[in-house]
Amino acid sequence: MGVTVAIDCMGGDHGPAVTVPAARAFLRNHPEARIILVGRQDALEQAMTAIGNGFGQRLSLHAASEVVAMDDPPAIAMRTKKDSSMRVAINLVKSGEAQAAVSAGNTGALMAISRFVLKTLPGIDRPAIATILPTRKGQTYVLDLGANVDCLPEHLLQFGIMGAMLVSAVEHLERPTVGLLNIGEEAIKGNEVVKRAGELLKASGLNFYGNVEGDDIYKGTTDVVVCDGFVGNVALKTSEGLAQMLATFLREEFSRNLLSKAMALIAMPALKRFKHRVDHRRYNGAALLGLRGVVVKSHGSADAFAFEQAIHRAAEAASNRLIERITERMTAMGVAA
Amino acid sequence: MGVTVAIDCMGGDHGPAVTVPAARAFLRNHPEARIILVGRQDALEQAMTAIGNGFGQRLSLHAASEVVAMDDPPAIAMRTKKDSSMRVAINLVKSGEAQAAVSAGNTGALMAISRFVLKTLPGIDRPAIATILPTRKGQTYVLDLGANVDCLPEHLLQFGIMGAMLVSAVEHLERPTVGLLNIGEEAIKGNEVVKRAGELLKASGLNFYGNVEGDDIYKGTTDVVVCDGFVGNVALKTSEGLAQMLATFLREEFSRNLLSKAMALIAMPALKRFKHRVDHRRYNGAALLGLRGVVVKSHGSADAFAFEQAIHRAAEAASNRLIERITERMTAMGVAA
Repeated sequence: MGVTVAIDCMGGDHGPAVTVPAARAFLRNHPEARIILVGRQDALEQAMTAIGNGFGQRLSLHAASEVVAMDDPPAIAMRTKKDSSMRVAINLVKSGEAQAAVSAGNTGALMAISRFVLKTLPGIDRPAIATILPTRKGQTYVLDLGANVDCLPEHLLQFGIMGAMLVSAVEHLERPTVGLLNIGEEAIKGNEVVKRAGELLKASGLNFYGNVEGDDIYKGTTDVVVCDGFVGNVALKTSEGLAQMLATFLREEFSRNLLSKAMALIAMPALKRFKHRVDHRRYNGAALLGLRGVVVKSHGSADAFAFEQAIHRAAEAASNRLIERITERMTAMGVAA
Repeated sequence: MGVTVAIDCMGGDHGPAVTVPAARAFLRNHPEARIILVGRQDALEQAMTAIGNGFGQRLSLHAASEVVAMDDPPAIAMRTKKDSSMRVAINLVKSGEAQAAVSAGNTGALMAISRFVLKTLPGIDRPAIATILPTRKGQTYVLDLGANVDCLPEHLLQFGIMGAMLVSAVEHLERPTVGLLNIGEEAIKGNEVVKRAGELLKASGLNFYGNVEGDDIYKGTTDVVVCDGFVGNVALKTSEGLAQMLATFLREEFSRNLLSKAMALIAMPALKRFKHRVDHRRYNGAALLGLRGVVVKSHGSADAFAFEQAIHRAAEAASNRLIERITERMTAMGVAA
C-alpha cells in the first residue's frame, strides 16, 4: 500500500493527542504507507517530540495556521478559515500530494470544504456519507447519513453505486449486495421515491438484493443499505440511543449492590468479549462519497485505536481505486457527463 | 373501571390459547371490568371448559364463524370475511356493547376493518398507530407506525394531538410533552414537511418540546414522539434488529464453553433483572388512533402476559375517555368539522 494519507491533526475532541499516536500506529502496521500530518506548527512539533520519528520520509509535517471548531457553521469554516488544518489536508488530496484525507472535525464543514475543493464526480448530484454498522455476519455500509434529506430516486441510485464501489474497494468484495431500505406492509410498500429508486437499482447492473427493512441492517442481509439522509440519520441515532440505554441498564444491574458487583467480576470475561464484538471503535471511519478524492470522517470522540481504523479505511479506499471504480461504473451506466 | 372490552380471540400466532387466559387474568386484576370473547363457537367453548367461568356476567361469549388469517390481504379480509372474529369485535364497539376492541391479528386488516366500521373522527384525515417503547425514564409513545408513508405537515400535527391525548388517557399525564422526530445538522434541519409540522405543533397549544433526534426516543426526552409511518417503521424495525443482535451476542458469549455457562449461572440474577427492564411484553398494545372507537393491536406473537397488557391499555383508554379527549382537542383547535 504505497498510499499517502493527509491527516487533519487538529480535528475531533482530542486533537493531536489522539490523531498523532493513531498515525504512528498506522505507519507501524502499514510499512509502505506514508502520512502527512497537518496542523498548527507548535502542536505538531510538540506531538512529534513526544512520539519521536522513526519513520523517516514516510512521515512528514505540513503546517496550517487555523483550526475549524466543532461548532463553526460550515459556510463560516469555508470562507473565513482558508488555512485550516482541515482545508489544507483536503488541498493535499486535490494537488495529488496525498491520495486521501482523514478528519475527526465538524462533519458539515468537512463536507462543505471537500465539496468546494475537490468537486463532485461526473454524474453525481450530491455527495453522501457512508457509515459502517456491525451486524450478525460482520458489517454493513449504510448511506446516506449526510445532509441529503429530500432525495430523488436518482440520488438513491447514485448512493447505491457509490456504496457498492466503496465496499468493493475497502472490503475486497467484487459484487457486494445492495439493499434498499423500505417498510414491510405489502399493500403500501414504501413511498413513491423509494418505489421508483427500486426500479432504477434493479436495472442498474449492481448486485441489487431488493427491499430490506430496518432489522435487516443488523441481520447483515446486504453489504450495502441505501436510504435518504433523514431516514439514515434516524436509524443511526435511534440505534445509538438504544445501545446506550441497554449498556446503562446492564451496568446498573451489575452494580446494584455488592453481590451484583461480584457477579460482574466473575462474568467479566464474557462481558468483555461481548463488548468487543459491538465495539463501535472498530467501525470508525465514514466515507464522504461522490467527490474527486477520498475523504474519511472519523467520529469526533474517537480514541487513537478508533482513529487508526479511519486512517486504515481511507488508505484502503485510495489504494484500491475507489474514485476510479465509481467513475467507471457511472460511465458504464451512461449517467456520467 | 366499568368498561367492556371485546376480544378477538382468534387473532395472533396462538389464538385462544393465549387470548382466553389473558382475558381471565385481566378480569381477576380488574374487578369492575367486563369482557366479551369473540371467536368460533367450538374454540370458545373449549377454552371456557379449560378455564371455567368464575366471573358470572362479567365474561360473555360472542360467536363469529370466520377468522382473518395473518396473511390475508386487508381488502380480502374486509370484503369476504364479514363474520370474522376481528370484525365482530369491532362491530361490538360500533354498537356500543363494548367500549374497546383488542386483536393480535393481521395489522393491515385490523386497520382497514376498523376504519370501515368505525370511521375516522372529525378532522382526522388518517388513523395512525402508536406503539410504546421503553426508555431510560420509563416509556415513550411513538407514532405513526402504520401505513402513513407520505405525510403532510397537517397529518403530523394530528398525530401529535392523538398521541398526547392517548398518553393523557392511559398514563394519566395531563400535559404530556410532544417531540417531533428530526435530524440534527443545524443548517439543514429536516425536510420541508417536518419544518412546517414543527410550526403547526408549536402553535397547537400542545406541550410541544420541539425537535427530537433518534436517540431521544430511548433517552425518554418526551412522552410522545411524532414521525411519519416510514420513519417510524424504520426506527422500530432497526431497534428490533439491534436488540436481537445484542441479545444473540450476549447469549453466545455466555454459552461459549463450560466456564462461560458457569459465569452465566452466577450472573443470572443481574441478567434477569436486566431482561425484565427491557421486556417488550410489558410494552405490548399499540393503539389505532383517530377512529370513533378504541382499538388496540397486540403483537401477533404475544403470550398471555403480553396480551393482558394490551387489554389493560385498551380498557384504560376507553374508561379515560380517549375518543372524547381527541374530539374535544380537535374541536378546540377548530380543525374538526
